[in-house]
Amino acid sequence: MHPLCEPLRPLLGTWRGDGDGHYPTVEPFGYVEEVSFGHVGKPFLAYSQRTKHATDGRPLHAETGYLRMPRPTRVEFVVAHPTGIVEVATGHFDGARMWLRSTLVVGTDTAKDVTTVERDFEIDASPGGDVLRYALRMAAVGVPLTHHLAAELRRQG
Amino acid sequence: MHPLCEPLRPLLGTWRGDGDGHYPTVEPFGYVEEVSFGHVGKPFLAYSQRTKHATDGRPLHAETGYLRMPRPTRVEFVVAHPTGIVEVATGHFDGARMWLRSTLVVGTDTAKDVTTVERDFEIDASPGGDVLRYALRMAAVGVPLTHHLAAELRRQG
Repeated sequence: MHPLCEPLRPLLGTWRGDGDGHYPTVEPFGYVEEVSFGHVGKPFLAYSQRTKHATDGRPLHAETGYLRMPRPTRVEFVVAHPTGIVEVATGHFDGARMWLRSTLVVGTDTAKDVTTVERDFEIDASPGGDVLRYALRMAAVGVPLTHHLAAELRRQG
Repeated sequence: MHPLCEPLRPLLGTWRGDGDGHYPTVEPFGYVEEVSFGHVGKPFLAYSQRTKHATDGRPLHAETGYLRMPRPTRVEFVVAHPTGIVEVATGHFDGARMWLRSTLVVGTDTAKDVTTVERDFEIDASPGGDVLRYALRMAAVGVPLTHHLAAELRRQG
């Protein structure tokens, strides 16, 4: 593992679990999620995420990108969304909590207008733990920064 | 397959082959590449790419994102790079050739300055074909739009 990524080791692996989505413009919904953080020995982790509807199993969201840690506790996150949006975020990671706030969210001509994304992650690696929780707030389509997603995932295998 | 993606069907699958890289700021290099286009029935293709050094096999570049076709022949491409860059591009696809030009390339504080990326793809699906060729031009670190990469890939399996 690249030395710059060593502090991110608690994130490595595939995580699965359930989440709930809310937003003023949509009906509340439940989802099943899989998140993966991997590495190839270079100074970044590869990140991917997929969700499916909790009851009918149809694919909902996905996103894919990279997490970098250019210096201790400082993280950078670049992500593409299939809705035609890209997100650049920075934040910090203390080994148990990671906080990210977008510095830029921009899309193609046909993408929905998303202006800000904030993500909080919490990793419980205590005995019997291996739980990754996150909450995501979003400002989009004229709605100010508002709670959107929360999920609790468990590391697989 | 989602009807909006149907024209993109010739891209589907995993492609492997060799490429060559040149840029005024680096030594020329050869690489081995794997590119994948997949779908889950929604109006986008998932895209991922990885290259390794042609002689010592070490991982070089990677990128990951999505390709959309909001209307016939019009394509949109959103990609994240592990170098801390995101790219939004638009262009057209006529079934055999796809041309993409970035409308925005932006990075984190620690990313290299890339200003424009142009990509030309050519798919030869004739009998004995199944070849995907691409060329990529890039403006970066003060260098104007200049040829950077070219590769020829074959569809696997």
